[in-house]
Amino acid sequence: MSRKPLSAAIDRKVRDSFNRQSFMQTLGASIVELGEGWCALVLDRREDLLQQHGYLHAGVVSTLADNACGYAALSTMPEDATVLTTEFKINLMAPAAGERIRAEGAVIKSGRTLSVVTAEVSALNDGAWKTIAVFQGSMMCLRHTADDHTR
Amino acid sequence: MSRKPLSAAIDRKVRDSFNRQSFMQTLGASIVELGEGWCALVLDRREDLLQQHGYLHAGVVSTLADNACGYAALSTMPEDATVLTTEFKINLMAPAAGERIRAEGAVIKSGRTLSVVTAEVSALNDGAWKTIAVFQGSMMCLRHTADDHTR
Amino acid sequence: MSRKPLSAAIDRKVRDSFNRQSFMQTLGASIVELGEGWCALVLDRREDLLQQHGYLHAGVVSTLADNACGYAALSTMPEDATVLTTEFKINLMAPAAGERIRAEGAVIKSGRTLSVVTAEVSALNDGAWKTIAVFQGSMMCLRHTADDHTR
Amino acid sequence: MSRKPLSAAIDRKVRDSFNRQSFMQTLGASIVELGEGWCALVLDRREDLLQQHGYLHAGVVSTLADNACGYAALSTMPEDATVLTTEFKINLMAPAAGERIRAEGAVIKSGRTLSVVTAEVSALNDGAWKTIAVFQGSMMCLRHTADDHTR
Repeated sequence: MSRKPLSAAIDRKVRDSFNRQSFMQTLGASIVELGEGWCALVLDRREDLLQQHGYLHAGVVSTLADNACGYAALSTMPEDATVLTTEFKINLMAPAAGERIRAEGAVIKSGRTLSVVTAEVSALNDGAWKTIAVFQGSMMCLRHTADDHTR
Repeated sequence: MSRKPLSAAIDRKVRDSFNRQSFMQTLGASIVELGEGWCALVLDRREDLLQQHGYLHAGVVSTLADNACGYAALSTMPEDATVLTTEFKINLMAPAAGERIRAEGAVIKSGRTLSVVTAEVSALNDGAWKTIAVFQGSMMCLRHTADDHTR
Repeated sequence: MSRKPLSAAIDRKVRDSFNRQSFMQTLGASIVELGEGWCALVLDRREDLLQQHGYLHAGVVSTLADNACGYAALSTMPEDATVLTTEFKINLMAPAAGERIRAEGAVIKSGRTLSVVTAEVSALNDGAWKTIAVFQGSMMCLRHTADDHTR
Repeated sequence: MSRKPLSAAIDRKVRDSFNRQSFMQTLGASIVELGEGWCALVLDRREDLLQQHGYLHAGVVSTLADNACGYAALSTMPEDATVLTTEFKINLMAPAAGERIRAEGAVIKSGRTLSVVTAEVSALNDGAWKTIAVFQGSMMCLRHTADDHTR
């Protein structure tokens, strides 16, 4: 996976977009790594993000993977473009037990219109990381569309 | 799709499980229909659930579809069982514009171990409902496992 | 699902494309229904299309579903366009037992670039049809690209 | 990915199963690598395996990926077990141009009932290999079920 650094403009565009997603703040997610076609997000377990057995909800796990991939894809797109998830698939291999999860998203094929992305989600439990989910999807590049619609 | 009513015991078990999912309360989701192999959930747009363009986040849409299917599946399982999502796939066809979304989940094949489920998600915008996503996945039945781990 | 008839030109374009797919002849597949956004294909069990237990191979089932959806999508596209599968997902619910399978593909959202499609595959066994698989995917429309590359 | 060699019994069981799949012979596929949780298959372009543009059909590509993963999974299962694909998802990133394709399947989580598998498919074109598809799915382990039903 590419970990080439981004231009300052693209780096700022991606982080600004992330910061405008109010749902990321609701989940307490943050960007911990960002490169060309590469993005890692983390999120800490909180009492308001759980399913019925006390683990992080599958929806939280999926959202983190989707967003890591979306921003990995946006990092490879032209400056005048924004990104939309068109579809994704996730296999949940183990409950999201532990105190923190981390999603690593990567672009495996960057196309003019569609990019193919994959992600792995891991959970930190008692000091050890364990892969809990794998994700595969498609991101669409929308040109001439401000990522920030408020401008 | 079956809309056969549930026994009182299964109906209560499903609703109790839903109520124990703190993430459903965080999203403001609620059950509006529940039958054998059938569950519909709704959720209202809120400022803290959005993506960068001001629409409901794809993760919120996916979570609602996943949960509608999970509870549709749980409604067909024995009383001593709980449910886990093993995998799902979602195609997002339009942004979640509007004031409310609704996910309708249905079991299309109920197996001893695995059930296959599908869902449609619609958005209510200016008085009209529009399908915005389709979902297909697998739910696992875990026998001899209390759905409520706190008991 | 739309069952509106096609124009003669689009009907012929779809059937010509199907006939140019040598793999369809290898499988013995044929078109049994075709309308706007709708296509049904059938295929008979043969000794050279089986997996290790004597059922039709999952790859045969998937191929038939993919093709039913591809031609359902092509039927909705402009005359100067061709179609490509970009991704699909299939849940196999029962072995393809019996003497014949049928895949019904439908367009559920027709977009300028991407169409979302679903299919159901059924098997005919001892006179009864049973749903054995469900399929969900995306088809891409390529404009200004002859479907027949030999011209 | 594990490339640990298999016991002679499991190695023979996997190859026997592959050889009983008549569809593999119809496609001209063969096993080129086999280890614990790992299987690579190849297949040469032939005039009877094509889609309308003269490339190997997406159904051929999917079948090869599915089978590589199925046998990767079977290699990790007990001797009295057989394997069934329950679901898979594939993203097709480029047409299968060239003279040969290769699918590499790997088990990323081996469970008692379900295993999660991924595959990559590459095409050899003018001496260069290019990744054309990625695949993610679930394989089910059926105990006390002879892989060879003819015995």
